[in-house]
Amino acid sequence: MKEKVFKDPVHNFVYVYDQVILDLIDSKEMQRLRRIKQLGISYVTYHGAEHSRFAHSLGTYEVMRKIISKLARKGELVLSEKEELLCKVTALLHDIGHGPFSHSLESVFGGNHELWSKRIIAGDSEVNKILAEVSPDFPNEVVQVLDGKHPNKLIASLISSQIDADRMDYLLRDSQATGVIYGNFDLDRIIRVMKPTEGQVLFREAGMHSIEAYILARYAMYWQVYFHPTNRSGEIILKKIFERVVDLYEAGFDFYLPESLRNILRGEINLVDYLRLDDSLILTLFQEWRDCSDQILADLSSRILDRRLLKRIECEDKDGLYERLIPLFEKVGINPKYYLVIDHPYHIPYDYYQPEDEHSKNPIYLQSKNGSIKELSQLSDPVKAIAGKREVMYNLYYPRELILEGQGQEYEEIRQILGY
Amino acid sequence: MKEKVFKDPVHNFVYVYDQVILDLIDSKEMQRLRRIKQLGISYVTYHGAEHSRFAHSLGTYEVMRKIISKLARKGELVLSEKEELLCKVTALLHDIGHGPFSHSLESVFGGNHELWSKRIIAGDSEVNKILAEVSPDFPNEVVQVLDGKHPNKLIASLISSQIDADRMDYLLRDSQATGVIYGNFDLDRIIRVMKPTEGQVLFREAGMHSIEAYILARYAMYWQVYFHPTNRSGEIILKKIFERVVDLYEAGFDFYLPESLRNILRGEINLVDYLRLDDSLILTLFQEWRDCSDQILADLSSRILDRRLLKRIECEDKDGLYERLIPLFEKVGINPKYYLVIDHPYHIPYDYYQPEDEHSKNPIYLQSKNGSIKELSQLSDPVKAIAGKREVMYNLYYPRELILEGQGQEYEEIRQILGY
Amino acid sequence: MKEKVFKDPVHNFVYVYDQVILDLIDSKEMQRLRRIKQLGISYVTYHGAEHSRFAHSLGTYEVMRKIISKLARKGELVLSEKEELLCKVTALLHDIGHGPFSHSLESVFGGNHELWSKRIIAGDSEVNKILAEVSPDFPNEVVQVLDGKHPNKLIASLISSQIDADRMDYLLRDSQATGVIYGNFDLDRIIRVMKPTEGQVLFREAGMHSIEAYILARYAMYWQVYFHPTNRSGEIILKKIFERVVDLYEAGFDFYLPESLRNILRGEINLVDYLRLDDSLILTLFQEWRDCSDQILADLSSRILDRRLLKRIECEDKDGLYERLIPLFEKVGINPKYYLVIDHPYHIPYDYYQPEDEHSKNPIYLQSKNGSIKELSQLSDPVKAIAGKREVMYNLYYPRELILEGQGQEYEEIRQILGY
Amino acid sequence: MKEKVFKDPVHNFVYVYDQVILDLIDSKEMQRLRRIKQLGISYVTYHGAEHSRFAHSLGTYEVMRKIISKLARKGELVLSEKEELLCKVTALLHDIGHGPFSHSLESVFGGNHELWSKRIIAGDSEVNKILAEVSPDFPNEVVQVLDGKHPNKLIASLISSQIDADRMDYLLRDSQATGVIYGNFDLDRIIRVMKPTEGQVLFREAGMHSIEAYILARYAMYWQVYFHPTNRSGEIILKKIFERVVDLYEAGFDFYLPESLRNILRGEINLVDYLRLDDSLILTLFQEWRDCSDQILADLSSRILDRRLLKRIECEDKDGLYERLIPLFEKVGINPKYYLVIDHPYHIPYDYYQPEDEHSKNPIYLQSKNGSIKELSQLSDPVKAIAGKREVMYNLYYPRELILEGQGQEYEEIRQILGY
Repeated sequence: MKEKVFKDPVHNFVYVYDQVILDLIDSKEMQRLRRIKQLGISYVTYHGAEHSRFAHSLGTYEVMRKIISKLARKGELVLSEKEELLCKVTALLHDIGHGPFSHSLESVFGGNHELWSKRIIAGDSEVNKILAEVSPDFPNEVVQVLDGKHPNKLIASLISSQIDADRMDYLLRDSQATGVIYGNFDLDRIIRVMKPTEGQVLFREAGMHSIEAYILARYAMYWQVYFHPTNRSGEIILKKIFERVVDLYEAGFDFYLPESLRNILRGEINLVDYLRLDDSLILTLFQEWRDCSDQILADLSSRILDRRLLKRIECEDKDGLYERLIPLFEKVGINPKYYLVIDHPYHIPYDYYQPEDEHSKNPIYLQSKNGSIKELSQLSDPVKAIAGKREVMYNLYYPRELILEGQGQEYEEIRQILGY
Repeated sequence: MKEKVFKDPVHNFVYVYDQVILDLIDSKEMQRLRRIKQLGISYVTYHGAEHSRFAHSLGTYEVMRKIISKLARKGELVLSEKEELLCKVTALLHDIGHGPFSHSLESVFGGNHELWSKRIIAGDSEVNKILAEVSPDFPNEVVQVLDGKHPNKLIASLISSQIDADRMDYLLRDSQATGVIYGNFDLDRIIRVMKPTEGQVLFREAGMHSIEAYILARYAMYWQVYFHPTNRSGEIILKKIFERVVDLYEAGFDFYLPESLRNILRGEINLVDYLRLDDSLILTLFQEWRDCSDQILADLSSRILDRRLLKRIECEDKDGLYERLIPLFEKVGINPKYYLVIDHPYHIPYDYYQPEDEHSKNPIYLQSKNGSIKELSQLSDPVKAIAGKREVMYNLYYPRELILEGQGQEYEEIRQILGY
Repeated sequence: MKEKVFKDPVHNFVYVYDQVILDLIDSKEMQRLRRIKQLGISYVTYHGAEHSRFAHSLGTYEVMRKIISKLARKGELVLSEKEELLCKVTALLHDIGHGPFSHSLESVFGGNHELWSKRIIAGDSEVNKILAEVSPDFPNEVVQVLDGKHPNKLIASLISSQIDADRMDYLLRDSQATGVIYGNFDLDRIIRVMKPTEGQVLFREAGMHSIEAYILARYAMYWQVYFHPTNRSGEIILKKIFERVVDLYEAGFDFYLPESLRNILRGEINLVDYLRLDDSLILTLFQEWRDCSDQILADLSSRILDRRLLKRIECEDKDGLYERLIPLFEKVGINPKYYLVIDHPYHIPYDYYQPEDEHSKNPIYLQSKNGSIKELSQLSDPVKAIAGKREVMYNLYYPRELILEGQGQEYEEIRQILGY
Repeated sequence: MKEKVFKDPVHNFVYVYDQVILDLIDSKEMQRLRRIKQLGISYVTYHGAEHSRFAHSLGTYEVMRKIISKLARKGELVLSEKEELLCKVTALLHDIGHGPFSHSLESVFGGNHELWSKRIIAGDSEVNKILAEVSPDFPNEVVQVLDGKHPNKLIASLISSQIDADRMDYLLRDSQATGVIYGNFDLDRIIRVMKPTEGQVLFREAGMHSIEAYILARYAMYWQVYFHPTNRSGEIILKKIFERVVDLYEAGFDFYLPESLRNILRGEINLVDYLRLDDSLILTLFQEWRDCSDQILADLSSRILDRRLLKRIECEDKDGLYERLIPLFEKVGINPKYYLVIDHPYHIPYDYYQPEDEHSKNPIYLQSKNGSIKELSQLSDPVKAIAGKREVMYNLYYPRELILEGQGQEYEEIRQILGY
């Protein structure tokens, strides 16, 4: 196959040399990722965060291609042609199962994008047909890698670890799209200090400060983008919309709900239905729902569409504040189930680096010239300082404009509690 | 009002100092622009082209704010507070009337986004209310500026000319988003050589090469992005979808068509309907239509969703080729109305610089130290070379995979004509 | 005065609005800084590190100008016209007294660039004449600010603190010049969260992660650039050259030494002599000395010119290694005074952040919305982790090629000790 | 050999895989290029233009390495290992013979840096020894390539043509260093459309707009940097200094002139002398000369050191103005030989693109899909517009401050002629 390229704002070009990769990119399951934003609702905070999972998938593939190509050139990575393809395919497809606004939707409707990835790859899809042409077991191998169960642990480590192609692309891409420069890091330098060994990628100790800088870039992006309280407000409203939909559906309320979503709620979702889900559908539903007769669903939908978010206060003593506000909200007729939300950091996908957590991905090991191996946080003071920490921060979200406008004793109490 | 900022990938920050500007940004009509892509269907060519008209609108405002602030600091621009606000508001709102995939949709369904901008500003909208609070005639003044009819011609020239805030932002933004670096230019330098005079912005002749470089940046973006044949293919399919919808609607065909679009087709469109239109709705309709019983609408819809575009050949002698193919397409049952398209350059919005065209915007004038004024193309050879030229290039678009797979005499003739 | 600009690779433009600033830039004392590299000998590690103190001085001025302009626009900084000028002038002149390769030269020949700055400003110089025209006491005020003794402590804090115009420019500039991206940070954002109060600039607590990222950028640059062992090797050789020159001079050795340097060694250096010193002179002397009859001076000079540096090993137990090598070096005739160097980190200008050090500059204080003030390392874990730490790392530098080529018992012992 | 890298601000890393390349970089003749600025005196206009020929040489090598590597990966370039090395070595060494401020120095003292390159490569140098170890004829082959006489014309075309590694690096590097963004272009894209054929590199017609953009980038840099009238003023003073030195030397005037320069003037220059020449020496001489008893040499030297440049006026009718001023300058005692200079554009190295000039390098040919070949300016209107044009612009340089201060009839006449 002739070299084919895709112009990319992060890597300049994405280079393709395999027909399989090109066919996968052209598959309708991959094209669907164009209609799903990489950062979900984060555009309410950073208006530049409009890039899709499609762009990120191409970028992840490109990072993997670079890693393989550069390490092979140095003779440090020996993979068969099929293993190389496996790495590149898995990088490209790692997000194939993502649905719209996954974090919020999955937490309410159930489902799991990683499971859907495997269903798409193993099921009745264009992607599956393309992979099966490589060899009948190839789809299954891809699933194994995604599951972390492929016998070649080195491949798994390239795909999914603390410094993998996925994370390296999204840090660079999210940084560029949002304009928050702190996610930038020196990709070429990181690849240069990679040292594949049996079962795992190590890093040369001489490159410690590069690895440290990468973890600190991730840390910065967590605090300045991914954890940003305004993002959280957007996600909370999304979740509350979906919770309201479930409640209304279960109560038999008559409102527009497409068959695909009904099937999910009935637990009868199939691949065809799932693949119809994208940001467009969800946003179009919000347009429908903003005019529906249920005041809560209508209000929450318009809040997302028109960006009228819940405001927040930080609170140190969460229980007291939250508990005291609930009855007052009920009294004034603002349903606290939907309009008063305490956001626990524990629920945040918090992983800028956790070497010791059992759920965490592989820790980062550095190898010195004499061969000895140390875990990153033993070598880097700032990494040690942030590793595994769970910030105890509570944010309480509420509808400020309602609280400010409200008249009467209870409103005054609420305002006093909230510090007005 | 305290300074408020929006993080922006192009300008780093967008600075807001007026409550009116902030309220306009928060209005639901502006927020709707988040759901309309700046470059429409261009993402089929450049996957990074996912930025919205909202981001561009903020950017246009910011460029205007910089122009005013820098020229005022040098004492070269004297505007009243209200005139300044008028400039900034108009920059922010200049695209407020854009609908989804405007070029294609408008050319079939009728309508005109510039007209809708004025309806939104003058009509029953949040935007109108905010503007009317400045002064009762303020909405009207904004409309006048957008119409090029405001008595202060200098303001009109800042908003809409060959080097205006709109174009300067979109060149930079489209360049960054697509990764096509040639749209980049030195904004600060351009502003530095601006010289506002009565009724028009002139440019210092000492800055000629900066202005020239800006025009050449625009020229490069036209050829590498805006005119890209793959973009054109996407736009052609969009247009053919909308044409098919009109045909089906007029034929009384039973298919899903939301009330808002029916109203447009009935000529009964109102502002509420119009403001429901966004990319999400259109993409969701494509999802509906891909399953509808009309084969043409279904096929075209899936072509856009799955990016199966029409291919093209360049042709020098358009008539012959096109005319010979039509009956052959009919014979083999591929409806040439929808599947054989000749793309005339004349229809392309071609304006990288046309000093003499009666429809064109103001030409660019440079003033030498001694006060004499010359039009740009008299000073710059490369600008002169491209000014006002209309490239005679014809592209013929057709469904390659159908043509390649087809069996029989007619298919062979078609393939021969198309050079296979 | 009309606005005047200088094109700058870091800030795009440096804007000048005061004739005094322009005159100072044109003074011969400022122009001399073009001939002194900002990062001294660091180009042996990073070949891009070729930028001058002149460029950095313009950049420091521009950062100061931006700070003043942005804070004034927000009404947060109220300075008289003269105070503003004082800030800008001091920023521009803060490095005026720097000599060539200052760190190495000063540590051997004595002298102190800060003292020379004051002599230039207060003495018989073009700079002094320009300043004295502002007002007779103006040169003295500039000296006071540089000395940290100006009564307006806020001005001192803008000029010289943990986050001052000097550091902000050099981080950005050194980062760009070397290609080590980790020194980049969001200057606009830092300025936005500055909060001048009486006597000091505070920072808004909401901007904590920006400040943290700035300190981490500085930390990264220290380890990847300023402390780089190859840089240290270059500086060590420089120092050894100057030590040899002193030894030879004191021994009455006959070799080329210009009058200006002789005057320094005699302790009779005057301003005219001092201002003749620049990188060109020193490099030209090295060219002379590489041919002189003293083998050590000749060899060390050619080492710098041809970049034949000393190599290093890290050592944990410094005394043992160093002490054991000295007699062996003497035996084989390699003078350990010049060719065996232990590099103590304690001697390194180590200041990425030390809140508690008595010699350190002002710590960074953040102010929360309710007015309470905290020192940065109390709020940021990674900053706390690096604050005030002194890495215990010893590097032993030696001439590898001599050691590898040497024959005999002692050489073998040396090689064994050095791990060959 | 293990991969070795150099951090580079333009290409991020320069990758080295051959010991020969590494040894050449470490040779003293290459290290000397660190002490010669790439853009000579241009820093008087763009203070960022402080980068050396060493950095540019590494960059040229890296561009060549990329070209070879990318074309080989696509199977479009088949070179033997030795031919590859020849390409890379020649790219690295192409500027090895440059002296300080070559344009000015050579035009007065004679000599030719291209000739010196060949002498260094073929003569008694470290570079020669390293090359001769590859094979005895290898130095000669390198000389052949530099001379355009190597039998493999394709190699010559890669090294020296309108789009060669040299020009591509310097456009990017000069652009970044000065901050003039218009020299930026898409290097990866240019390499992608290269099509090596027997004897020459062609370009794919599909990439025409990329090639066009590259030529326009070069055009922009000529006008905004290389031809900048302030640069020209610096170069004119340099040249006048060297002319004065020759005059004084020939007149037997007693002043400091190092042996190496005396040897040049005697026509007895040898390689050892030549290699001592660098910017440092020249700048140190200017420091000497600024204090010498010849007023003209002293004044001109201080003008360069302190950046007191000659000012200029543009003149359309060169003869009249210049001729009328000469006797007036003589009358008032300002020697017109040194202080009144007419700058002819014809003397400027003007080559942004000249397809038809007999002295020019190979024109750029594009190949269409069907194999037909066209020269670039036949396809691109803006390139055609600038190709081969020689701007008729005359600048007259003179010492403004002297003219403004002067008293008397003749001065008044001079001022009147110069438009004061």
